[in-house]
Amino acid sequence: MLNTIIIGASGYTGAELAKIVNRHPQLTLCGLYVSATSLDAGKPLSALHGQLRDVVDLPLQPLTDIKTAAANIDIVLLATAHEVSHDIAAEFLNLGCQVFDLSGAFRVKADDFYRQYYNFEHKYDEWLENAVYGLAEWNHDQIRQAQLVAVPGCYPTAAQLALKPLLVAGLLDCDQWPVINAVSGVSGAGRKARMTNSFCEVSLQAYGLFTHRHQPEIAHHLNCDIIFTPHLGNFKRGILATITAKLAIGVTADEVTAAMESAYLNAADQHAVRLLKNKTAKLDDVVGSCFCDIGWQVQGEHIILTAAIDNLLKGASSQAVQCINIRNGFPQLTALV
Amino acid sequence: MLNTIIIGASGYTGAELAKIVNRHPQLTLCGLYVSATSLDAGKPLSALHGQLRDVVDLPLQPLTDIKTAAANIDIVLLATAHEVSHDIAAEFLNLGCQVFDLSGAFRVKADDFYRQYYNFEHKYDEWLENAVYGLAEWNHDQIRQAQLVAVPGCYPTAAQLALKPLLVAGLLDCDQWPVINAVSGVSGAGRKARMTNSFCEVSLQAYGLFTHRHQPEIAHHLNCDIIFTPHLGNFKRGILATITAKLAIGVTADEVTAAMESAYLNAADQHAVRLLKNKTAKLDDVVGSCFCDIGWQVQGEHIILTAAIDNLLKGASSQAVQCINIRNGFPQLTALV
Amino acid sequence: MLNTIIIGASGYTGAELAKIVNRHPQLTLCGLYVSATSLDAGKPLSALHGQLRDVVDLPLQPLTDIKTAAANIDIVLLATAHEVSHDIAAEFLNLGCQVFDLSGAFRVKADDFYRQYYNFEHKYDEWLENAVYGLAEWNHDQIRQAQLVAVPGCYPTAAQLALKPLLVAGLLDCDQWPVINAVSGVSGAGRKARMTNSFCEVSLQAYGLFTHRHQPEIAHHLNCDIIFTPHLGNFKRGILATITAKLAIGVTADEVTAAMESAYLNAADQHAVRLLKNKTAKLDDVVGSCFCDIGWQVQGEHIILTAAIDNLLKGASSQAVQCINIRNGFPQLTALV
Amino acid sequence: MLNTIIIGASGYTGAELAKIVNRHPQLTLCGLYVSATSLDAGKPLSALHGQLRDVVDLPLQPLTDIKTAAANIDIVLLATAHEVSHDIAAEFLNLGCQVFDLSGAFRVKADDFYRQYYNFEHKYDEWLENAVYGLAEWNHDQIRQAQLVAVPGCYPTAAQLALKPLLVAGLLDCDQWPVINAVSGVSGAGRKARMTNSFCEVSLQAYGLFTHRHQPEIAHHLNCDIIFTPHLGNFKRGILATITAKLAIGVTADEVTAAMESAYLNAADQHAVRLLKNKTAKLDDVVGSCFCDIGWQVQGEHIILTAAIDNLLKGASSQAVQCINIRNGFPQLTALV
Repeated sequence: MLNTIIIGASGYTGAELAKIVNRHPQLTLCGLYVSATSLDAGKPLSALHGQLRDVVDLPLQPLTDIKTAAANIDIVLLATAHEVSHDIAAEFLNLGCQVFDLSGAFRVKADDFYRQYYNFEHKYDEWLENAVYGLAEWNHDQIRQAQLVAVPGCYPTAAQLALKPLLVAGLLDCDQWPVINAVSGVSGAGRKARMTNSFCEVSLQAYGLFTHRHQPEIAHHLNCDIIFTPHLGNFKRGILATITAKLAIGVTADEVTAAMESAYLNAADQHAVRLLKNKTAKLDDVVGSCFCDIGWQVQGEHIILTAAIDNLLKGASSQAVQCINIRNGFPQLTALV
Repeated sequence: MLNTIIIGASGYTGAELAKIVNRHPQLTLCGLYVSATSLDAGKPLSALHGQLRDVVDLPLQPLTDIKTAAANIDIVLLATAHEVSHDIAAEFLNLGCQVFDLSGAFRVKADDFYRQYYNFEHKYDEWLENAVYGLAEWNHDQIRQAQLVAVPGCYPTAAQLALKPLLVAGLLDCDQWPVINAVSGVSGAGRKARMTNSFCEVSLQAYGLFTHRHQPEIAHHLNCDIIFTPHLGNFKRGILATITAKLAIGVTADEVTAAMESAYLNAADQHAVRLLKNKTAKLDDVVGSCFCDIGWQVQGEHIILTAAIDNLLKGASSQAVQCINIRNGFPQLTALV
Repeated sequence: MLNTIIIGASGYTGAELAKIVNRHPQLTLCGLYVSATSLDAGKPLSALHGQLRDVVDLPLQPLTDIKTAAANIDIVLLATAHEVSHDIAAEFLNLGCQVFDLSGAFRVKADDFYRQYYNFEHKYDEWLENAVYGLAEWNHDQIRQAQLVAVPGCYPTAAQLALKPLLVAGLLDCDQWPVINAVSGVSGAGRKARMTNSFCEVSLQAYGLFTHRHQPEIAHHLNCDIIFTPHLGNFKRGILATITAKLAIGVTADEVTAAMESAYLNAADQHAVRLLKNKTAKLDDVVGSCFCDIGWQVQGEHIILTAAIDNLLKGASSQAVQCINIRNGFPQLTALV
Repeated sequence: MLNTIIIGASGYTGAELAKIVNRHPQLTLCGLYVSATSLDAGKPLSALHGQLRDVVDLPLQPLTDIKTAAANIDIVLLATAHEVSHDIAAEFLNLGCQVFDLSGAFRVKADDFYRQYYNFEHKYDEWLENAVYGLAEWNHDQIRQAQLVAVPGCYPTAAQLALKPLLVAGLLDCDQWPVINAVSGVSGAGRKARMTNSFCEVSLQAYGLFTHRHQPEIAHHLNCDIIFTPHLGNFKRGILATITAKLAIGVTADEVTAAMESAYLNAADQHAVRLLKNKTAKLDDVVGSCFCDIGWQVQGEHIILTAAIDNLLKGASSQAVQCINIRNGFPQLTALV
């Protein structure tokens, strides 16, 4: 049994992590932490997330001393703000913990990236260098060796799982930038009282045109320019990405199918991608599940892909636990299906 | 043409009022006001309510001086907080304006009521005494004479329109308190960023058990004890009230029908109640409309009534304008259908 | 390992059953059946319920011969129409299977009940007599001995779990019939194309006033007259029941609390009821879970209770498996949390 | 006053048309028709659409004889299936009526179009030739002269209103096909009981990839190849289109703004397009209204546009009445705001 703690446990992602770790046969949930100044400190997690009553009633503790929190702990899940993850990850790592960070603090190794997109100076070059990007289906071998895993963002998970097989196989004409339209449920904005998340104000709308942080994360890891347009949808959970791209000259539908199946069929270990050839992914099929559904269709020189995930699960919590499973030699979907 | 201003115009109710007054053939929308300290002062109303762009683009002005605001104004609509209405209504009234107050500040003439339920001491006894309760279908004659109309609350409108015909006709056994269950859309909580109104937190739930302010408002005006249980529903607009009551001994279904029809059929002027004998009211039939649908069914000694309104319209704005129409001799539903 | 089959597996309840049985450590899912004439025969269950892809891909088989279907089977789950359950249960029972019936066919032992409320003549008096009503928290000892368990309806589960502690303790004044208002998600109407379930037609509305089949089911098992008003809500899953009742003379809030806690706290085995004293149950807290949340508040002579369940889980599938667990000596919530 | 009838009045579009015509100061609503075999014949329209009770209670008549229906009628609105409009339009036209057809039967003058996309042979070449495409903001002068107006489809209205100013001004690089992603509310599928429209089955999903009929309609009228991907969304009304395109070499953001404003600002007559420079359109801002909101943003060589309409209004009924207004010399938005 591996002793596990969750930092930043009060939000939607933290609650999902707690639920999964709690039912995981090889993990012991040893502590839930919030920032030392949080008004939620002292409350049981289930006071904030009623669905956890009688399931996870552990209290939220203020994180005052990392050394104390890390004592006897094998695994640290950071569901904290980017800056917080940046600030505290190293200390846990130096104490020998495995760290799985759900923030953006260690996802992209590129000059100026954090100054430009996250508004802070990155001070942990070495850990940034050593961090493994936790796109579970693709970075299996590196994750197995990692001490620090940077779990991908929600939009980037959906987009990359769909596009990567084609790019790896050289099937896309990248001169014509793939267009990624994605609609996210409101939980993607976190558990906060804000006018834009207010029930009566939410309705389908694009936001962050050309400027969302996930655009460079996707482009960097795919090594391909893209256009990414996120939308807020009138639902609580899930992301649907619709991706339109131009195929390289002469590429056929069969080659596309071969690339998708080579990437995701017949893997040694059951993973979390399901293929829908000539079909389209549907949001409700993945909400509440750890799966990413990927559909695609080719016509002439163009391909349209659709990818659906639960933003809080495959887009955050379940992918983090998938990485834990890989890292520690458990079947990939342990506690996830 | 009657010159009209709206105080507290930035909220959902204010926006609906602006839309109705703007299209009213006998009213001129002369000004929109917010509190002097509001961050919205200076913005056009349509900056807050996008559906009003090119329809009502008037700016929200800070209300700094009532005398200035009231100059040449015939009608003042108060869509303000209870305390604000209480504080400013008299000054407008003393300047000769007709005042239609959508808050609770002048609805109930009962000792200690405001201290007990609204947490303030009422200082305008005379205006409270003179205020007419604007339940349009019932208080027509008084409204026609009123200078101050206290427009009923949203829940009380639905509940009273359904129960009043039966109580007036003496058909209920009031020893057994009628049970009023009602579900309201989230807009009833106003245009504010609050955790409880946050998109992901909203789901069907009762609140304010035995303690909601609308309970004594309903009981007072019906002169009958009731049990009122409000609920928050997962929709933006509308209220559905389901009311269960015991009939007085020997009362028949036909007597009930006669009472309902005597109250609402064959009125001289078209009003806003629609009857659904042996049917049930449906929320969507009234959302966006000025109507209150009332269904009912009798079995043995019991009656179940359902009443549906748009909380922002018949529960607030359109009923206010219905009162304006009555007061000024226009057909009751002018600008409302 | 107990071999288990599901009859009527194509609907929403069937899909939930398949998911639970599939993950249950002591059950083996051996077959999914639909009626011999169903157009879905031959399809994998996951073709109808996309969320089950890669989870339960078993095909739906036409039920042509019960003897064949029952071979080597320990447990039969009937998620079939009332008439179908009535017609086929006995044959499975006579072959020695444990039968857990989710329909209404064996729930009420009362003369003329099936003719009056279900429009058919009941032909299996003996099995009806022997059937145990599967209200898991209350009928534990009988369920442990049963060969046929009649799993309660969705509304009756919520209503009875809330009211039964009070009635058993004699705390209610039943002369004044408790008023049960309940709102159900649309999945309660089954997986069918019907105008009333069409997305654009659904909006909050009461139905079946005084005539819903669950009214006599509740009244019979509580042995108390009630008024039950079901509503259709604009959500997919879940039921919220709001119950208003009169307390017997002199009953105090503390006595109510004692009755609720005596019924549900400190049980030997973890069960599926969670208590919310002086709070209200919230739909989202139970959607996707096996729990029934019960809140209550007392004022003077009246009590208001709220009870929330997932209609497809505690209102059907998870309660069926809870009964299987009890019957076979497994911890009650095995595979359910 | 112009006498007006609606054929195919029972659906969502028909109900909206009835509401608008009923409140139009220059139109008289003279009759509502359904097919001779419709089960709805004889019912008042308000029996199908409860929100119309006391507003439009006219009965739905079976259309048995066109000559009788057309007697004394100036304007015929066809809210009928494509084949029905095709079959009956000519007879009304030959009787001298103005015909406004909301189906696809007369929208595209291209060889083989109807065989290929609508599965029927078009038999009225001359009327097809004479039909004016009713994109109100663009074809004003032709509409003024037309006897037959083919009102554009819902998706094409949103897409064309956004793209046409850029194409007319030659600002796009059409070699790279613009990508149009659009999400529609479920009412776009019509008022029918179908599994795909069933409340529990609806969730965000793309459909009709590369094959939707509106793709060639848009491409034909814009004279530009496009990729169009429609989606079904979990809401009742509205369409949001997100359009990504490549600008021609050297085109600046200012040129884009100039083209948008030249198309839509300072028109002689108030029309139904609202511009949102550097902003994004939001669905709720247009639901229930006649407006199309268009936002846009330029970065480098790319532009992203968002366009929102109410699919039943600007995407159908209100645009039809806008065309009636233009055709008959009334202010364009009469009865629409």
